[in-house]
Amino acid sequence: MSLPSDIEDLRLRTRDFIRTVVIPAEPAPGERLKEADRTRLQDAAKAAGVYAPHAPREYGGQGVPLRYWSPIFQEAGYSLIGPTVLNCQAPDEGNMHMLELIGTEAQKEQYLRPLVSGAARSCFGMTEPHPGAGSDPAALRSSAAKVDGGWVITGHKRFTSGANNATFCIAMVRTPALEATPTSAAAQAGATMLLVDMDAPGVRIGEQISTMDRAIGGGHPHLHFEDVFVPDTAVLGAPGEGFRYAQVRLGPARLTHCMRWLGLARRAMDIALDRANTREMFGAALHELGIAQDMLALNVMDLETSDAIITKTAGLLESDARAGSALSSVAKAHTSEAVYRVIDRSLQLCGGDGVSDRLPLASYLNEVRAFRIYDGSNETHKWAIARRASSARRREVASAR
Amino acid sequence: MSLPSDIEDLRLRTRDFIRTVVIPAEPAPGERLKEADRTRLQDAAKAAGVYAPHAPREYGGQGVPLRYWSPIFQEAGYSLIGPTVLNCQAPDEGNMHMLELIGTEAQKEQYLRPLVSGAARSCFGMTEPHPGAGSDPAALRSSAAKVDGGWVITGHKRFTSGANNATFCIAMVRTPALEATPTSAAAQAGATMLLVDMDAPGVRIGEQISTMDRAIGGGHPHLHFEDVFVPDTAVLGAPGEGFRYAQVRLGPARLTHCMRWLGLARRAMDIALDRANTREMFGAALHELGIAQDMLALNVMDLETSDAIITKTAGLLESDARAGSALSSVAKAHTSEAVYRVIDRSLQLCGGDGVSDRLPLASYLNEVRAFRIYDGSNETHKWAIARRASSARRREVASAR
Amino acid sequence: MSLPSDIEDLRLRTRDFIRTVVIPAEPAPGERLKEADRTRLQDAAKAAGVYAPHAPREYGGQGVPLRYWSPIFQEAGYSLIGPTVLNCQAPDEGNMHMLELIGTEAQKEQYLRPLVSGAARSCFGMTEPHPGAGSDPAALRSSAAKVDGGWVITGHKRFTSGANNATFCIAMVRTPALEATPTSAAAQAGATMLLVDMDAPGVRIGEQISTMDRAIGGGHPHLHFEDVFVPDTAVLGAPGEGFRYAQVRLGPARLTHCMRWLGLARRAMDIALDRANTREMFGAALHELGIAQDMLALNVMDLETSDAIITKTAGLLESDARAGSALSSVAKAHTSEAVYRVIDRSLQLCGGDGVSDRLPLASYLNEVRAFRIYDGSNETHKWAIARRASSARRREVASAR
Amino acid sequence: MSLPSDIEDLRLRTRDFIRTVVIPAEPAPGERLKEADRTRLQDAAKAAGVYAPHAPREYGGQGVPLRYWSPIFQEAGYSLIGPTVLNCQAPDEGNMHMLELIGTEAQKEQYLRPLVSGAARSCFGMTEPHPGAGSDPAALRSSAAKVDGGWVITGHKRFTSGANNATFCIAMVRTPALEATPTSAAAQAGATMLLVDMDAPGVRIGEQISTMDRAIGGGHPHLHFEDVFVPDTAVLGAPGEGFRYAQVRLGPARLTHCMRWLGLARRAMDIALDRANTREMFGAALHELGIAQDMLALNVMDLETSDAIITKTAGLLESDARAGSALSSVAKAHTSEAVYRVIDRSLQLCGGDGVSDRLPLASYLNEVRAFRIYDGSNETHKWAIARRASSARRREVASAR
Repeated sequence: MSLPSDIEDLRLRTRDFIRTVVIPAEPAPGERLKEADRTRLQDAAKAAGVYAPHAPREYGGQGVPLRYWSPIFQEAGYSLIGPTVLNCQAPDEGNMHMLELIGTEAQKEQYLRPLVSGAARSCFGMTEPHPGAGSDPAALRSSAAKVDGGWVITGHKRFTSGANNATFCIAMVRTPALEATPTSAAAQAGATMLLVDMDAPGVRIGEQISTMDRAIGGGHPHLHFEDVFVPDTAVLGAPGEGFRYAQVRLGPARLTHCMRWLGLARRAMDIALDRANTREMFGAALHELGIAQDMLALNVMDLETSDAIITKTAGLLESDARAGSALSSVAKAHTSEAVYRVIDRSLQLCGGDGVSDRLPLASYLNEVRAFRIYDGSNETHKWAIARRASSARRREVASAR
Repeated sequence: MSLPSDIEDLRLRTRDFIRTVVIPAEPAPGERLKEADRTRLQDAAKAAGVYAPHAPREYGGQGVPLRYWSPIFQEAGYSLIGPTVLNCQAPDEGNMHMLELIGTEAQKEQYLRPLVSGAARSCFGMTEPHPGAGSDPAALRSSAAKVDGGWVITGHKRFTSGANNATFCIAMVRTPALEATPTSAAAQAGATMLLVDMDAPGVRIGEQISTMDRAIGGGHPHLHFEDVFVPDTAVLGAPGEGFRYAQVRLGPARLTHCMRWLGLARRAMDIALDRANTREMFGAALHELGIAQDMLALNVMDLETSDAIITKTAGLLESDARAGSALSSVAKAHTSEAVYRVIDRSLQLCGGDGVSDRLPLASYLNEVRAFRIYDGSNETHKWAIARRASSARRREVASAR
Repeated sequence: MSLPSDIEDLRLRTRDFIRTVVIPAEPAPGERLKEADRTRLQDAAKAAGVYAPHAPREYGGQGVPLRYWSPIFQEAGYSLIGPTVLNCQAPDEGNMHMLELIGTEAQKEQYLRPLVSGAARSCFGMTEPHPGAGSDPAALRSSAAKVDGGWVITGHKRFTSGANNATFCIAMVRTPALEATPTSAAAQAGATMLLVDMDAPGVRIGEQISTMDRAIGGGHPHLHFEDVFVPDTAVLGAPGEGFRYAQVRLGPARLTHCMRWLGLARRAMDIALDRANTREMFGAALHELGIAQDMLALNVMDLETSDAIITKTAGLLESDARAGSALSSVAKAHTSEAVYRVIDRSLQLCGGDGVSDRLPLASYLNEVRAFRIYDGSNETHKWAIARRASSARRREVASAR
Repeated sequence: MSLPSDIEDLRLRTRDFIRTVVIPAEPAPGERLKEADRTRLQDAAKAAGVYAPHAPREYGGQGVPLRYWSPIFQEAGYSLIGPTVLNCQAPDEGNMHMLELIGTEAQKEQYLRPLVSGAARSCFGMTEPHPGAGSDPAALRSSAAKVDGGWVITGHKRFTSGANNATFCIAMVRTPALEATPTSAAAQAGATMLLVDMDAPGVRIGEQISTMDRAIGGGHPHLHFEDVFVPDTAVLGAPGEGFRYAQVRLGPARLTHCMRWLGLARRAMDIALDRANTREMFGAALHELGIAQDMLALNVMDLETSDAIITKTAGLLESDARAGSALSSVAKAHTSEAVYRVIDRSLQLCGGDGVSDRLPLASYLNEVRAFRIYDGSNETHKWAIARRASSARRREVASAR
């Protein structure tokens, strides 16, 4: 698929910006980006016209449609801090996408505009401590009770990525069935998404969870809702529709992770290629040694198949969201393993330097290891993939009779 | 990518034709299709308007552009005999494609028209016995000497798939530099493709090579050229340009193998799914047992990533033949391993029946095993992939200085 | 572990016998050994003092203890017909082992002596058609009713390897509880092993199952017992103890398969090494090309780890049969995958010749493919391995409290 | 192989000591053991009679022969700090082994005795910066010149594990040919091992290399020798014999790494089993879910095959050091990959907790990742394995002619 010329132009400018502006500003392996640097680099990205590629133009982004996000996000992900600088990092990017699709105009002004500009940050309150909503979202335990003019939330979230820096949270909570009133429609019992300001009374950040990965700013802490009141206007979409909306967010969010990490895998591959192109072993150039060639070739195969399945999924998410969401499980399970393999092989090709902080590969490996578990562990996705395949075939056989 | 409606329509009709007409006519595992059945089924395919999907309409095909071959060829490959019935099997399909792109009008009338109709069959004389042209085409040893009004060919080919049934051969031979004459242009020394009638004096089929695979009619025999005269009009394209033309053929031909075998892998998957949906083990439905689910999910992942990389490569072959040809190495190396894994897992899921001839899976496994070696062994492709990646990165680094 | 000198001497003589006598007599790939050749070669093995290494000396074997079978059986397995020539092929070898351990003196004279000499052959009637005893032996459906002076068997077996040539069958059947009588002990309801002459009235060989593998003579047919009477002396061991005895047979029998196939994998490796040592590609000796080196090294790793786990398991089977039987699941699951990989890589290294019948590798691949399913599919073994690991850890944790 | 009763007794006491004394004293994930704790725990190990299992009794160890080290070292390795507490951690353990085998009595008193007691620590100066001795020891660049009464060393080492805390270093340096003198024998040009006190003038610790792994105390810094004088008595073994002696050290040292890491992999497996035994997912116990079972079974297979190949190699190192050293490449390449896979799967089974510091699995993964590169990268070992296999087969074929 060749890209439309404006997209290709944005891709090339993004590529250039990452390589000439962002990479020189990268913190040392294991260090986090400083706030002042984040602001400065985001301003530079705005000036370069490469900021927030996925966000609507009217809210400050580049307005790229989903089917073309992948080449741009891969360029951003080529630097670990690239997605933060371009403000297309999780969880903000997924929240922007959902606000754009579901939010009211007022919600967009209040939450989407500052989120795109970088003035606000956000988190997504979904995962709960065992045995709540983890791999199995149906086990949701946090809940909101209907009160006059709003809702009161009680609950406990976990792995709430980005919560430490967030100004608001989109919280998934269990809600009861509602009867229709003069001013509101009836709602079924189910899950509801609520926009919660982080400084609202009763919102409390709990235990910090220290993890292998560092790229997502603000860590993955526990988050407690202790009788938190939000007004009726805080409902994102409609009451009881939370699981359906979550799919709107989860499919693309899962895929944008793939895009960004694939960019990082390309970086690792380039580091390995540079090494192979400049080193010798046993009297031969490393890139001419067959075992190294085999590893490089497997890297290319992993990169290209990941790129291809992401492209296919992105297109499908636009044309058939349900099928696209199903295929995003395949894309996630494949790409998360593939990028891990690419970085692992690249590190191996760099020998002792690969495991040291002279190269960033060990830190990359720790970043992407977690992705095989985040956003639904690969085992959970494989379980879903198998179930869908089995039932699709059963339906096909039944209909052929 | 959603398909244009006419292509989707052809795909659905092909699917229906394969399932209702072709599969019921399949020979037992290990048996070859009888000639009479071949003719009868090809006639039915013509009547159903699904015959020769890749061939130009004016020569009797469906005129599908290369970027859409994959979904159609996958439907054809769902039956081992499907590609033969639709006349899109190797090596004829690749020869049709090359004749269409390079042949003169006279050559098309003489060779392409009967090849599309099924009246003629062909082979491609490229591979030679060690140490000739095998994985390394540059080692070509067969040659043609220029004589008055034509060429005299001497050589020995091997693994000449389809030769036993062929009416003509496209032979790659080494040719000398030619000076310009009043009626012909100068030519560099190199390889040339010559159209050789199989009943020409001096053409001799040699030792038969019995192999694991059976689907390509006419086996893979040795082929000898003993002072075979062909006229000047037998040159396909131009003298000395054979390697360049070979790329025209090899990239797409490699990819159509992937398409057809991917269809067969889908068949194997369906056989396994049917089994999983109807059997129990340890008191649970097999499709609910996790190890089986894991195998089914890996199958889906292999099928989908193969489909995606094929789609990407087919599009690229149309827009940038050189880049597409390079990517076809990745598609071939990935897909040939992936389809093998899919069939291997499907067989495993079927247990004792899987290794017996109650199911066709053991014969499928033997068919696709050879594909990891044919059309350039995967190791050779990986070597080429690594070399291209290394040199591309060297160029990029050099240009950034 | 260095071998005792008499065992090492037998190993070396077996090695020499296989290479100088057996390999030159091998039938072409895919062909079976002729009966006359079998007899002639077995006589030669007896004369060379290498016949029936595992069988007791007093019954005509070499009396090697189980912990030293592996090096000898690997030498035998270096030729596909080696185990038949040395009469240590399944299922006879496993039946000899069980008769030796459990049989009465009279049973040994009647069944074991001719079985060792080669005058008799046998089969083991265990597996049944779905949903009977397959991967789950507890589902046994064939049964025997107690009658005066003996038993009457009714049942249907499947995949009864060797049945076509067998003179007797050891049949696993379900039997009722028996009260004690003046001449016999009480028995619990359960499974019982019965020695059944194949020419007894009511024994009928049913449908032949044609499979990928050919090395086990006599195929894997269905076997029907239609009111077959056997006398009380036909009980092998004691009534109701069949499952316990089956473990006596299955652990070692599973392991001897590993030993024999490991020998064949060594043969494949030697074929690949010979090729690598004599061929060039891209101007370099193939054994110096890194991708080939990587494949060769992986082969060595698979061969050595298989050898090591077999040795450990064989020792354990002698010292602690229950633990050894459990570990034999690990040895089987690992070795069956490892030998398949070794042969697959060896074939790949031989390119076009590898898939043709110029080399026996394609036939080897088909032989060992089935072993990943026979003797309990690897998935079933892995299920058992995981269950044992989980419960062992639970017990350990409980006892630590 | 069942262990002799005294070894089994030591193993059980070691197991008990690790679980009841060492594990409760483990620092938090990522933290290093404090010096005071090290001393206290080593004293406890001495009191418990489990200290320095591999070291000679006359120097304060338990005197276990090499062929039985594996079960003991695995128990030690069950805690990341276990090998340090038992003083059988690299590089000291390998240096003790070499001093025992090669050292003079005076050298043993001066260096071995305090090393075993824990009063001294050591490092091994072998690896050099590119293009010196790395994967290819023949590229050694550091050298010593002969002067009156001793040697003067000039050189630069890298990845000198343990150097920060070491009291002495065994340095590999290039030395010239020496003519015989009245008091010393002639020597060939080659490598020589020299015992160098770390406080000798001219010894300078250079740049620290920060790596993924933390378990080996004292890091892996650069080490400079700037005209360092050592006396003639500092020669370990004989001049010019350094490469031969290095093999004495490297084979066992490589294998003890395997033993220790295998113990850690067992720990990871137990953590995963405990989780699987206590958690549910999708309404089923995790250990009953098939994908989890498959991962657990693969873990057992990796653990058992690693244990088996280590046992075989340890036995061979005692009976045939050269063959044992060759096989140690196979053991290293297999075990380093296997333990990595085991920890990786265990982490995956623990989901979000696996990537967080609530469990130590992420830190284990970082520890063992480096082992795939240390002690000769696996690729270098595979290259050596393939070369040995090829040449062994060539010799065999030649001798059969």
